[in-house]
Amino acid sequence: MALPSLARYCHFKHHWTFPRVHIKCQRRVLSVWSRAAPQSKSMKRTTALKRGMLVPSPQWSTNYLVGRYLHATQHQLQEVMLTSERYGVQRLPFATVSDADLSFFKHLMPGRVITDSEELKAFNVDWLKSVRGCSKVLLKPQTTVEVSEILRYCNERNLAVNPQGGNTGLVGGSVPVFDEIILSTALMNQVISFDSVSGILVCQAGCILEHLNQYLEELDFIMPLDLGAKGSCHIGGNVATNAGGLRLLRYGSLRGTVLGLEVVLADGTVLNCLTSLRKDNTGYDLKQLFIGSEGTLGIITAVSILCPRKPRTVNLAFLGCTGFSQVLKTFTTCKGMLGEILSAYEFMDNECMELVKRHLKLASPVAESPFYVLIETSGSNSSHDEEKLSDFLEHVMTSNLVKEGTLASEDKKIKALWSLRERITEALTCDGYAYKYDICLPVERIYDLVTEMRSRLGNSAKNVVGYGHLGDGNLHLNITTESYSHALLDAIEPYVYEWTSKHRGSISAEHGLGFKKKCFINYSKPREAVLLMQQFKSMLDPKGILNPYKTLPSKVI
Amino acid sequence: MALPSLARYCHFKHHWTFPRVHIKCQRRVLSVWSRAAPQSKSMKRTTALKRGMLVPSPQWSTNYLVGRYLHATQHQLQEVMLTSERYGVQRLPFATVSDADLSFFKHLMPGRVITDSEELKAFNVDWLKSVRGCSKVLLKPQTTVEVSEILRYCNERNLAVNPQGGNTGLVGGSVPVFDEIILSTALMNQVISFDSVSGILVCQAGCILEHLNQYLEELDFIMPLDLGAKGSCHIGGNVATNAGGLRLLRYGSLRGTVLGLEVVLADGTVLNCLTSLRKDNTGYDLKQLFIGSEGTLGIITAVSILCPRKPRTVNLAFLGCTGFSQVLKTFTTCKGMLGEILSAYEFMDNECMELVKRHLKLASPVAESPFYVLIETSGSNSSHDEEKLSDFLEHVMTSNLVKEGTLASEDKKIKALWSLRERITEALTCDGYAYKYDICLPVERIYDLVTEMRSRLGNSAKNVVGYGHLGDGNLHLNITTESYSHALLDAIEPYVYEWTSKHRGSISAEHGLGFKKKCFINYSKPREAVLLMQQFKSMLDPKGILNPYKTLPSKVI
Repeated sequence: MALPSLARYCHFKHHWTFPRVHIKCQRRVLSVWSRAAPQSKSMKRTTALKRGMLVPSPQWSTNYLVGRYLHATQHQLQEVMLTSERYGVQRLPFATVSDADLSFFKHLMPGRVITDSEELKAFNVDWLKSVRGCSKVLLKPQTTVEVSEILRYCNERNLAVNPQGGNTGLVGGSVPVFDEIILSTALMNQVISFDSVSGILVCQAGCILEHLNQYLEELDFIMPLDLGAKGSCHIGGNVATNAGGLRLLRYGSLRGTVLGLEVVLADGTVLNCLTSLRKDNTGYDLKQLFIGSEGTLGIITAVSILCPRKPRTVNLAFLGCTGFSQVLKTFTTCKGMLGEILSAYEFMDNECMELVKRHLKLASPVAESPFYVLIETSGSNSSHDEEKLSDFLEHVMTSNLVKEGTLASEDKKIKALWSLRERITEALTCDGYAYKYDICLPVERIYDLVTEMRSRLGNSAKNVVGYGHLGDGNLHLNITTESYSHALLDAIEPYVYEWTSKHRGSISAEHGLGFKKKCFINYSKPREAVLLMQQFKSMLDPKGILNPYKTLPSKVI
Repeated sequence: MALPSLARYCHFKHHWTFPRVHIKCQRRVLSVWSRAAPQSKSMKRTTALKRGMLVPSPQWSTNYLVGRYLHATQHQLQEVMLTSERYGVQRLPFATVSDADLSFFKHLMPGRVITDSEELKAFNVDWLKSVRGCSKVLLKPQTTVEVSEILRYCNERNLAVNPQGGNTGLVGGSVPVFDEIILSTALMNQVISFDSVSGILVCQAGCILEHLNQYLEELDFIMPLDLGAKGSCHIGGNVATNAGGLRLLRYGSLRGTVLGLEVVLADGTVLNCLTSLRKDNTGYDLKQLFIGSEGTLGIITAVSILCPRKPRTVNLAFLGCTGFSQVLKTFTTCKGMLGEILSAYEFMDNECMELVKRHLKLASPVAESPFYVLIETSGSNSSHDEEKLSDFLEHVMTSNLVKEGTLASEDKKIKALWSLRERITEALTCDGYAYKYDICLPVERIYDLVTEMRSRLGNSAKNVVGYGHLGDGNLHLNITTESYSHALLDAIEPYVYEWTSKHRGSISAEHGLGFKKKCFINYSKPREAVLLMQQFKSMLDPKGILNPYKTLPSKVI
């Protein structure tokens, strides 16, 4: 760890916790220091250490980038109960894969038809190890034409198909329930074009989000979305699930940034709406129906997406708050004072912090607080941004909204701080079986659900934690136990959905419905809407071969 | 006009055209002045005038707010040729309104059923005076229940319905082609709720855009869209046509900002998807299908929309450029240097300027140039924004990208400068019959179409002008003649669409297809997409009663 950046990092920490009058942007703080008493960088560091400041623990520089990678080595593949057994699902009357079918696929894609049961294991189980199918065939097409041929054939043969991207979904949408053929986009990973004037990227669906971001960063652009699973997730899967993530507050949802899609329909028809135009009002916007449809209406094969310029300067503040009302007030203040440079406003409770400390050996950069807030700014002028941030921090500290905080402007430190928030999901999987809820609520009520659930479940749960994208009103409520328990599930559901519905929230803000939540759609959508969705499904996929058992309930509610 | 603001305004102008080294933000410029020689405000004004500076002409303060108001007095209602005759359209076999039907409507909505032929005239003709229907009934519901009752009845009786908002559309989508019943949202003009923490507004479809903006401004928010027709257009119509406008560059399209819709389907079913949540991934996003469907799939009765905070500081630069390549380079520079505060980048050619000068008596604030650019910044810190803008302007002036410019930061002056761009549409209607094209193209090719068209048409056109939202790649190509000529239309179409298609553009960036462009959809959408759209239409409106003859061609292309 280079000293200058550490010194810079530490000084902030120091100035925040002690002489509050000195809370100023980095440049100003350094000038205060130099005016007070000239010190070498190592001296400054020693002074800071002596004053009891927390120094980032060594694992920050080694562990923080692990993230949600598929088949990560730290989790052994345990035998997960079959979804069909755990949930008592009946298989629909699809055909089963025959030798003749395998011959067809092998002829179409030599060497890219996987039938080895060991190799198939990881594709049959979700990342959370919560659902498991028993597919015997995995196909790895490389082109849209191949996807089209596969679907045309499967539709004729009445074979069910489970599209799969990075398999990082959290609602059981990305793995088969029974023996559906898995169609992986892993080999559809080519960038088709990038226009540096407009910032429009066109690429195949299987490109990994982080790879795209790295590719763009070299060209002075970034992807408009960012999420914890970025190291594994595919852009096609992101679009198919309408992924939200960390940058939504700033760059908006995929419904605005996705400009075009190429989709293969259930019968193999290729729908080419892969335009690269910022505006296009010629007829109905068909691509929107596929965004967030979780592979049930068509398979996305290519994406055209509007990418913002890489911000010249990024700052991240990690703050401790004494209560949730302070978290909310800090948010309102922040929207007003940081305005156009605010790019993320995330929160986590102390229970989350305890989990990442315990299971991932990460260290908190600030003293223990009931809540923590991450505020990211991105802008084009570092001194302007630092001044805005400094004014804001001064205000929230002097108003006692924030107890303590630390600030980073160097890339490595920013990533280290972000990892505390991004790796909560991973820490939860280490804690046992995690019951996951992804709720959107009016921001004022967002934490009430965690408090209520904690008191409702008492000792029957190991941990009840809350974190999420507060700027978007999006709470991730997670409940852990040593192992899956049907009784505990009954204590949580449908209570959590009823509570959400009562407060006019959404029972799935960004994760989708997948397999696990499909039967609860009526808590967020009226009957007329669900009926219409079912009509769309019937129209586009009359045999229902695309990702069956997902997204919509099979019967009218 | 208050002197201080004029002085401020003038000084900018002065410093730009003379000592370029002084191009600095307002604060700096004023300090330069005071250091040079203390002067009173009136003295400063006199000095500026003596130096030959252009002072805004008097009409700036009186005329600039006229805009695209419905039934504006300056245009008498002339007899416009019937659409059915001009275009040779065959009436579809809908029922005609009987006395019994009128009785039903009068009983449902006493005093809000208009049958007076004089009163109906304005609702049968579009704002451009280019298409005309012959409806004999205008209904003015106040509630969603009334709209539902009307549609249920009309669907049963096979009566065609033409939904109408502010009737400011430019493609003939808002007026009947034959005798369709006009359903006006004019009386559905109530704000339902506004949440000042989230910035989410819920209102009825008939609220006028400008009224909503005024309402929000008092609460320190603004609407995420702004367009020339704001004084008349309804938010429901904006959503139904997926209106783009001047703020799209900054706040994105309605596909991202509209959070929920309430829609009445053809059979009277009320589809309540009026959620007020930033994120909601429960099933397919049905509302997207109605955004931009021009009233052909359902009638939007209420809208939930995410509104941004009112920027604390707004600046507008009006610049003259010597060529289109300079306009493009200025844009690229601007995106890099203004970054997050850039809120609009518009352009107009000198032919447009000549039209607003001639027909609307507006004065240009800068010396004649082949092209003009309007750059708006919106931000949270005036000194930061002015510094960024100042650095940018210094750069483009010293690089000879910009010949001359003027800057405004006072609301009245900003509006006056904006009116030059916003009132081009109005000036075009004064120039004669206007053939209007709303094209989206890769930004580098955007003006080539104007140049080609100008040379193709020669003297057969009165004027061929280009302007638009350059930041979005959106060109408004307009061609005027003294009166409508079929021969000229043949010279323009399908050439303009073929050219656009060849360059992979959209033949309707933001105006929609309405009546006039529906047959050209295949220039921007593949056959499979049009077929699917027709299937959606058949599913949602089997009898085709909703806004017939619009958006989609009646036959498969």
